[in-house]
Amino acid sequence: MFGARCLLRALRSCTSAPCPRPKPSARLSVRDALGARSTNGERVKVQGWIRSVRSQKEVLFLHINDGSSLESLQVVADSSFDSRELAFGSSVEVQGQLVKSPSKKQNVELKAEKIEIVGNCDAKDSGFVHIHTPIITSNDCEGAGELFQVEPSSKIKVPEENFFNVPAFLTVSGQLHLEVMSGAFTQVFTFGPTFRAENSQSRRHLAEFYMVEAEISFVESLQDLMQVMEGLFKTATMMVLSNCTEDVELCHKFIAPGQKDRLEHMLKNNFLIISYTEAVEILKQASQNFTFTPEWGVDLHTEHEKYLVKHCGNIPVFVINYPLALKPFYMRDNEDGPQHTVAAVDLLVPGVGELFGGSLREERYHFLEQRLARSGLTEAYQWYLDLRRFGSVPHGGFGMGFERYLQCILGIDNIKDVIPFPRFTHSCVL
Amino acid sequence: MFGARCLLRALRSCTSAPCPRPKPSARLSVRDALGARSTNGERVKVQGWIRSVRSQKEVLFLHINDGSSLESLQVVADSSFDSRELAFGSSVEVQGQLVKSPSKKQNVELKAEKIEIVGNCDAKDSGFVHIHTPIITSNDCEGAGELFQVEPSSKIKVPEENFFNVPAFLTVSGQLHLEVMSGAFTQVFTFGPTFRAENSQSRRHLAEFYMVEAEISFVESLQDLMQVMEGLFKTATMMVLSNCTEDVELCHKFIAPGQKDRLEHMLKNNFLIISYTEAVEILKQASQNFTFTPEWGVDLHTEHEKYLVKHCGNIPVFVINYPLALKPFYMRDNEDGPQHTVAAVDLLVPGVGELFGGSLREERYHFLEQRLARSGLTEAYQWYLDLRRFGSVPHGGFGMGFERYLQCILGIDNIKDVIPFPRFTHSCVL
Repeated sequence: MFGARCLLRALRSCTSAPCPRPKPSARLSVRDALGARSTNGERVKVQGWIRSVRSQKEVLFLHINDGSSLESLQVVADSSFDSRELAFGSSVEVQGQLVKSPSKKQNVELKAEKIEIVGNCDAKDSGFVHIHTPIITSNDCEGAGELFQVEPSSKIKVPEENFFNVPAFLTVSGQLHLEVMSGAFTQVFTFGPTFRAENSQSRRHLAEFYMVEAEISFVESLQDLMQVMEGLFKTATMMVLSNCTEDVELCHKFIAPGQKDRLEHMLKNNFLIISYTEAVEILKQASQNFTFTPEWGVDLHTEHEKYLVKHCGNIPVFVINYPLALKPFYMRDNEDGPQHTVAAVDLLVPGVGELFGGSLREERYHFLEQRLARSGLTEAYQWYLDLRRFGSVPHGGFGMGFERYLQCILGIDNIKDVIPFPRFTHSCVL
Repeated sequence: MFGARCLLRALRSCTSAPCPRPKPSARLSVRDALGARSTNGERVKVQGWIRSVRSQKEVLFLHINDGSSLESLQVVADSSFDSRELAFGSSVEVQGQLVKSPSKKQNVELKAEKIEIVGNCDAKDSGFVHIHTPIITSNDCEGAGELFQVEPSSKIKVPEENFFNVPAFLTVSGQLHLEVMSGAFTQVFTFGPTFRAENSQSRRHLAEFYMVEAEISFVESLQDLMQVMEGLFKTATMMVLSNCTEDVELCHKFIAPGQKDRLEHMLKNNFLIISYTEAVEILKQASQNFTFTPEWGVDLHTEHEKYLVKHCGNIPVFVINYPLALKPFYMRDNEDGPQHTVAAVDLLVPGVGELFGGSLREERYHFLEQRLARSGLTEAYQWYLDLRRFGSVPHGGFGMGFERYLQCILGIDNIKDVIPFPRFTHSCVL
């Protein structure tokens, strides 16, 4: 599946610890190197991450990118440089001569004289453990109620009312199951189909869609969560761009002209952060007329999300700290007031709106107990409450809609065009 | 998920073309090398596949295995040998001295003087394309009828009888969707959840389980299919053994003593092939009394499958060419008689019984048309018939139950113990 593998690879090798960064020093960015007019053998230094390695008998080709450009800089090195550490994802500092390239694929290339590895990239799956969370479940994670119910098509063989003894549904999220597993593996993720029985024909809803969901123990701030989310988006996108170049270029050329620049803009800027309260203020002061009037305590609509992204200069923006009353029982109480919020975060991106949703989870027994009691869910979620009785830790996680992610990076307007067999109201072809 | 990643990696890098093999020459097997009594620096040659590479500043450690032993031979080489071609999966011929190892982990190691790469292993995903086949479908691939039906839990918002306009079910197989995609990508696979509403509490059935399914265009014989199946089983198992050594050893030590030898036995032998007709003859001549009397034209039961594997010396055995009347409409007619069969294949393995099921598909329009008409399925499968009207090719594929695979290699008796959240009749916990 286009891009899925890159995304999983990015998440598996992702750690929530910050990566070592090269120290700032006099140097040329990849963008500047590519745009250099004089290539009379001037000596330069370029720092970045290895996007591909091709090893030939006498010579080694590297492609280096530092995020300043979608195009990478080709580095040509003597084969004596060949080493296992020069691998995809490693950060390097290359010194050498910028020369005219003999190939038609690029104007300039960097003839390496010295390559220093700044940070290794061990591709072993040491970050997140992949868990298969179940498709059929007796939970309703979101409390949303837009569930598909599952029953045997013929009840002849099972005399009881329910095949599973209890009503069973198609999962809307693997989050609660991941929370169980994060209590053993610390950092876990799942990548699989999720379902919504929403009667929607919109360009960003499907009845069956894929989500990447991650859950991380010992996370105490939204800041840490957002760092993983931004890292996942950027790393996965860089991997897709370097591994599926032709496919991406096809979309950018024929379907979404200008998307290449928009994507570059997203990658090279730090994502922004605003609070829900700030977001509502921005919307209230907007010159635009909305179908739904923005108001504190009411959910953001697609039109609001798209306005906010535009307001932020088309840079992805995290919206944090939503009203407690809008969010499910498991999100962590911020104990603020009088406008009572929870530690929730959504990432809004250009063209799509909400791409990620996440939160710190309520790990404190008594807080969670009260929230469940207020929703009348204590009995059904006793097992979940018990997780807070035995070795509870601060933790949090997020989910990202995979088809929306593809829409965002490829610039595809309709979600039904990024999945081979789309399922939505009135349609289940084949 | 334990092992899933290795399995997918094996399939992605798998090609249906036979791999280059080293020519036979005087040499020591890995088993013999490991068991060598005198290690007074004698010069030996070992051929095998690289199972791991660890590169240190001055020295390079390789682990080599040729299938003669579950344990690998450690090769110690000067770091000048370091090269990108010495990668996981590459086949090599190593010449050097067999010496006593300074480490407690092994008795002997091979001090390399010469390492020759016999066949590269390019880890790029060039073999099979990963397709996400849908979970909700309007097909019933097996024609078995043990389906779960899917409906919104509340029908208030959708006034029509069906959310999708047609009855919708949970998939029992992605095969038909893969057949569509194999017409564009030649070699495709899927790895995802599948479902059976079977009222079974057995040790090898789940209501929700994972399948690896592959479909290959331009395949004309069961022989070619079986080669891919055997290759997948062996490659994936070797990868699991080398990447998840500690987990496997835990199971083999505490849960299934003796399983290590049984697995070694499966890996080092060529899988056997018998026809369904031969299988029935073997069962009829068995001294054992079966609950179900074996008879031509009747399906094999678990007791029969287990007997056949034992009869074959506990080596996995392919059973091919099943009665046409027992199998679904899409399997290719062998046009034989009077005992009319189709080109179907099941792989039976020790402890589990059926692990893989596959077939050549009926690619001939008129044959398929008649089979569909006889089953009254012409209208429902017109789209499938149409695939035979436009650029039809001989093709075939198979599916492998992932949890049964784990049972088989780990020696776990009950399928519910190899999945984190098992679903079966009367049980859907969490």
